[in-house]
Amino acid sequence: MIRFECDYTTGAHPKILEALVNTNGEAAPGYGVDIHCERARVILRELCQAPEAGVHFLVGGTQANTTVIAAALRPHQGVLCAETGHIHVHETGAVEATGHKVLALPAENGKITAGQIDQYCQDHYDNAAWEHMVQPGMVYLSLPTELGTVYTLAELEDISQTARRWKLPLFVDGARLACGLAASDVTLPDLARLCDVFYLGGTKAGLLFGEAVVITNPALNKDFRYLIKQHGGMLAKGRLLGVQFEAFLTDGLFLDIGKKEVDQAMRLREAFLAKGFGLFVDSPTNQQFPVLPNEVVVALEKSYSFEVWGKVDEGHTAVRFCTSWSTRDENVDALIADIQRL
Amino acid sequence: MIRFECDYTTGAHPKILEALVNTNGEAAPGYGVDIHCERARVILRELCQAPEAGVHFLVGGTQANTTVIAAALRPHQGVLCAETGHIHVHETGAVEATGHKVLALPAENGKITAGQIDQYCQDHYDNAAWEHMVQPGMVYLSLPTELGTVYTLAELEDISQTARRWKLPLFVDGARLACGLAASDVTLPDLARLCDVFYLGGTKAGLLFGEAVVITNPALNKDFRYLIKQHGGMLAKGRLLGVQFEAFLTDGLFLDIGKKEVDQAMRLREAFLAKGFGLFVDSPTNQQFPVLPNEVVVALEKSYSFEVWGKVDEGHTAVRFCTSWSTRDENVDALIADIQRL
Amino acid sequence: MIRFECDYTTGAHPKILEALVNTNGEAAPGYGVDIHCERARVILRELCQAPEAGVHFLVGGTQANTTVIAAALRPHQGVLCAETGHIHVHETGAVEATGHKVLALPAENGKITAGQIDQYCQDHYDNAAWEHMVQPGMVYLSLPTELGTVYTLAELEDISQTARRWKLPLFVDGARLACGLAASDVTLPDLARLCDVFYLGGTKAGLLFGEAVVITNPALNKDFRYLIKQHGGMLAKGRLLGVQFEAFLTDGLFLDIGKKEVDQAMRLREAFLAKGFGLFVDSPTNQQFPVLPNEVVVALEKSYSFEVWGKVDEGHTAVRFCTSWSTRDENVDALIADIQRL
Amino acid sequence: MIRFECDYTTGAHPKILEALVNTNGEAAPGYGVDIHCERARVILRELCQAPEAGVHFLVGGTQANTTVIAAALRPHQGVLCAETGHIHVHETGAVEATGHKVLALPAENGKITAGQIDQYCQDHYDNAAWEHMVQPGMVYLSLPTELGTVYTLAELEDISQTARRWKLPLFVDGARLACGLAASDVTLPDLARLCDVFYLGGTKAGLLFGEAVVITNPALNKDFRYLIKQHGGMLAKGRLLGVQFEAFLTDGLFLDIGKKEVDQAMRLREAFLAKGFGLFVDSPTNQQFPVLPNEVVVALEKSYSFEVWGKVDEGHTAVRFCTSWSTRDENVDALIADIQRL
Repeated sequence: MIRFECDYTTGAHPKILEALVNTNGEAAPGYGVDIHCERARVILRELCQAPEAGVHFLVGGTQANTTVIAAALRPHQGVLCAETGHIHVHETGAVEATGHKVLALPAENGKITAGQIDQYCQDHYDNAAWEHMVQPGMVYLSLPTELGTVYTLAELEDISQTARRWKLPLFVDGARLACGLAASDVTLPDLARLCDVFYLGGTKAGLLFGEAVVITNPALNKDFRYLIKQHGGMLAKGRLLGVQFEAFLTDGLFLDIGKKEVDQAMRLREAFLAKGFGLFVDSPTNQQFPVLPNEVVVALEKSYSFEVWGKVDEGHTAVRFCTSWSTRDENVDALIADIQRL
Repeated sequence: MIRFECDYTTGAHPKILEALVNTNGEAAPGYGVDIHCERARVILRELCQAPEAGVHFLVGGTQANTTVIAAALRPHQGVLCAETGHIHVHETGAVEATGHKVLALPAENGKITAGQIDQYCQDHYDNAAWEHMVQPGMVYLSLPTELGTVYTLAELEDISQTARRWKLPLFVDGARLACGLAASDVTLPDLARLCDVFYLGGTKAGLLFGEAVVITNPALNKDFRYLIKQHGGMLAKGRLLGVQFEAFLTDGLFLDIGKKEVDQAMRLREAFLAKGFGLFVDSPTNQQFPVLPNEVVVALEKSYSFEVWGKVDEGHTAVRFCTSWSTRDENVDALIADIQRL
Repeated sequence: MIRFECDYTTGAHPKILEALVNTNGEAAPGYGVDIHCERARVILRELCQAPEAGVHFLVGGTQANTTVIAAALRPHQGVLCAETGHIHVHETGAVEATGHKVLALPAENGKITAGQIDQYCQDHYDNAAWEHMVQPGMVYLSLPTELGTVYTLAELEDISQTARRWKLPLFVDGARLACGLAASDVTLPDLARLCDVFYLGGTKAGLLFGEAVVITNPALNKDFRYLIKQHGGMLAKGRLLGVQFEAFLTDGLFLDIGKKEVDQAMRLREAFLAKGFGLFVDSPTNQQFPVLPNEVVVALEKSYSFEVWGKVDEGHTAVRFCTSWSTRDENVDALIADIQRL
Repeated sequence: MIRFECDYTTGAHPKILEALVNTNGEAAPGYGVDIHCERARVILRELCQAPEAGVHFLVGGTQANTTVIAAALRPHQGVLCAETGHIHVHETGAVEATGHKVLALPAENGKITAGQIDQYCQDHYDNAAWEHMVQPGMVYLSLPTELGTVYTLAELEDISQTARRWKLPLFVDGARLACGLAASDVTLPDLARLCDVFYLGGTKAGLLFGEAVVITNPALNKDFRYLIKQHGGMLAKGRLLGVQFEAFLTDGLFLDIGKKEVDQAMRLREAFLAKGFGLFVDSPTNQQFPVLPNEVVVALEKSYSFEVWGKVDEGHTAVRFCTSWSTRDENVDALIADIQRL
């Protein structure tokens, strides 16, 4: 069985694992104030051209999302989000559990627009019963989105400008940002400049675990470590995060991993298209969503693991193939050959 | 200015006010354990044919909704609700503030169906990522709905049966139940039999304030008074609620008020239809939503207060006229005459 | 049975009731934006010499406390409070239900000191594990306290200065403030000047219900009405609060009621002392806490209702006698006579 | 610098690390449903003689505590806990952030008694204002406690019996349980039998991270994975937890580590006592709290890292020395020699 079902099936990239093994015997203070965390912070601030940014390392994405959103909102505020957004659909109500409503916007290919945000805010304040409604208090995007699509720099600039006009902090969930950087014209300095907070995900890009949260808005950064602790995110052996990110951020490893994942995915995309299959959504990143005849699904399931995304019509099913840091080129070759042979 | 903008513009019905004045000097224990509350409980249990039901008097609807929902759900559960439901739209995220997601279902004329509830639950448990999603934990309806429509007894029985099959408590928000009883084939005993909890609203039917929550599910009733206190709903001079409900429930006053409101509203409805105006939604209760040419809106605004509900097209606007316990027949006559004269 | 068990056994003071009856037929917009609320706001701002203050009318004390505290704190912050404070002991965890810890300080006679607040903050930031502990984020006092004692103006000034040095909003719970004003050297302008927010209680001073929250800190006042709604505190017929407070604040009625309650209580205090009974706490307000021999408790219970506060030793019990707006002088006379006769 | 400041300064025990390295390339499903987690579950159930127990692996202690407590309590309930308990003092209000009050009991040497629990519950239900107070809903202990002390089996049986009589789930925080098992007469089967839920900590006993939660109460286990996800505790590469616990639980590694830590600590304890120093608390586990003259503290700080616990008097300070899985015997020898030489 060759595995394409998700991007976190295997352990750590060899360079990450090596760093963990090499530093295993070091004694370090806990909770993220060790030398490895500090070095990783310095590198990331440089990569972001954001010398003043707060950098915090958390274990997972749901934890990062919840902690950031709870830190940013007052009790009567909610967070604007695509209806397909992870926080709305796949976090078992973690945001609501901190008291806040997710304000879901209709999304096309997983994306929302500056225009939608603007309209929502305008409608809110125009409504005579505004105080009876949840106030929009933040904008949440993901890059890439749940459907693998990306925001262009121009779109991100529009959204940032709109958010600032309405005084809404802008938060970008970068659980798969390594791929997002490879597949869009957005850079880390762009994110640091346009967002109030974003994160660079490690879990889905070759770390055992870890998300690096970058906060450029000082008001949001204030006391953020209290919130990490309150949300159960302050890892006792915090240096595990520092060690991994130090390796991940050195010599462009995160960029290489992202690029490799995307390149492999593009080869799969072309193979599906060449065979005449449609795409549920045209993703430029490591998640590919071909629409396959049901019998093709059955045939491929014999040798490959992948995710059934949903029924499209009686005869067709959308599926998801994911490449990851550990996907081998020969396995991509094998799948492409099998697609061509169908 | 003749007022039709809502059903809580004036104070208390004369019989309610009289009861408050007559008992003003009585000394009574606080927090709803006085003789008036107790008498009102006895009457309401009888009216519901539910001798074991818990009956609790709260000040307002948002408070009642939040307290009931918080009492019923475990942390990972949400409440199924029409997308137009009060708890989803007009309570400033009160349900989310207690940690729970509102699971909004598409609604037709403010109503949801047993089939939708069934499908939502089926889909939830069929989804491979079910544990990453909010579990449906309760069903919330309102009778009448936000759009004035009502569930028939058959519909309510279907929903109740479905909810019970999925082990979901059924909760009916009866902020305007006096009208709902007048306009549907549903009775208090039906509600007590089919729901786990519902309330009979007083605020919009001639009380100064007050909602009578009836809980027939003993697990939900257990410790409910702690939750009332925690949610700020335990009125110090609780007998004010008992005194008002005692009068409201005596000699069918609540039924008379509901019937009068509905009868007046039906006269308005006929007048709008006779004049050829459409209805935004065809409501059988005290809220009427005609679609009027914009110039008619302007003309009527000179003598009448009513609520602008929303733009329908360039030339037409949906508006809401409400009758209330204090609406005078001569004012209804005047409005009808003006409609005919348009 | 002559009742001294609490200060909210009866309905409304005649002038309050009269105002409610007289305005019952008026039609008014809901939710506290009517003319009576507005007039009451104007009067209260004048009485406080705080022309810019936000004034909000809520139904009850627990609601007021919870809403104010939730509005003021970020998620990692708690509220400093006497260990005997109402929010710590008698609100069924309402503050915790909004996510915040009550940071209880040892209290003498229900009071805390500027020094305690200062030390707590110093200790917090001196502790190496500070980020693992709840950050002090607000100071809550009550005036009078749960034990009827009052803060002097000098004490309040000290506390205010300390709170401001640590950037902690100061909140004074004035559920019995009418008595507090009668029994201390603190005035409404002092409270407006020294606090960020306080309230003047109506429920325990002759209103059917109602607490007037005065917010002088603009950051706290911003969007406060959203929070009222979220916490179920936005009364549909909000004018009921305005009408009552308008009467309460006119011609010094609130001061007269407070003074009368205190004067009667002082007569009781002297009678207990004259008879040689001790005081559990020496309260200058309408709650009196004599320590009585158990047989005296039994004897008085035949004719008077009062609250058993707690066992002091095998032979003695602390009890509480409350005067209220409706306590008659002849009933105070009767009790004094019975005490003397013991 | 020889380090005794805490038990989580270094990485993983060689056997744990080896297991992680050996399985790094395996592809496995995420979220804890892989074969390693499953094997670790089987072993732990056997060790506990609890074949039906739910076993869940979480990353850290605060996360485990919060998730378990949130799963167990209804909104009006709080958790009984020693005033020195971790959840009350050192989790930045994580429990309160889920809406629940920590009901702190006075503690002697970090421990509470069955009698205290019984009295608290009795007092709660005897109090006339019970519904205005947080209901005790759960008992939280830690074994060892924050001060390194342990409950005896007899004490634990008493507490369990009392908790069951009041229908309170009993929860034992076992962040340092490996040491607790080495230093008390309590066994895993005892914990499984007497508690509703407990956990065996890995972070402080040689894992990179990880706590194994064992739930023997089926009502509490139901839907527990939803709560893990909601609290951000569902690790994507969940097998990291399974792999580590599989190694930790095999061939008694967890017992060996606990025994070694305790043995080393006992040698330190004796050295301090032999030198005539007192103990802040007499701990039988891996945390030792000698009371040292200030100049001794200064002297030892030159070569050893340890934690200053608090000032005892002008001349003395309580400090904490921790042994860990990675503490070398020669370093213990060195410290003992230095103590003797003082």
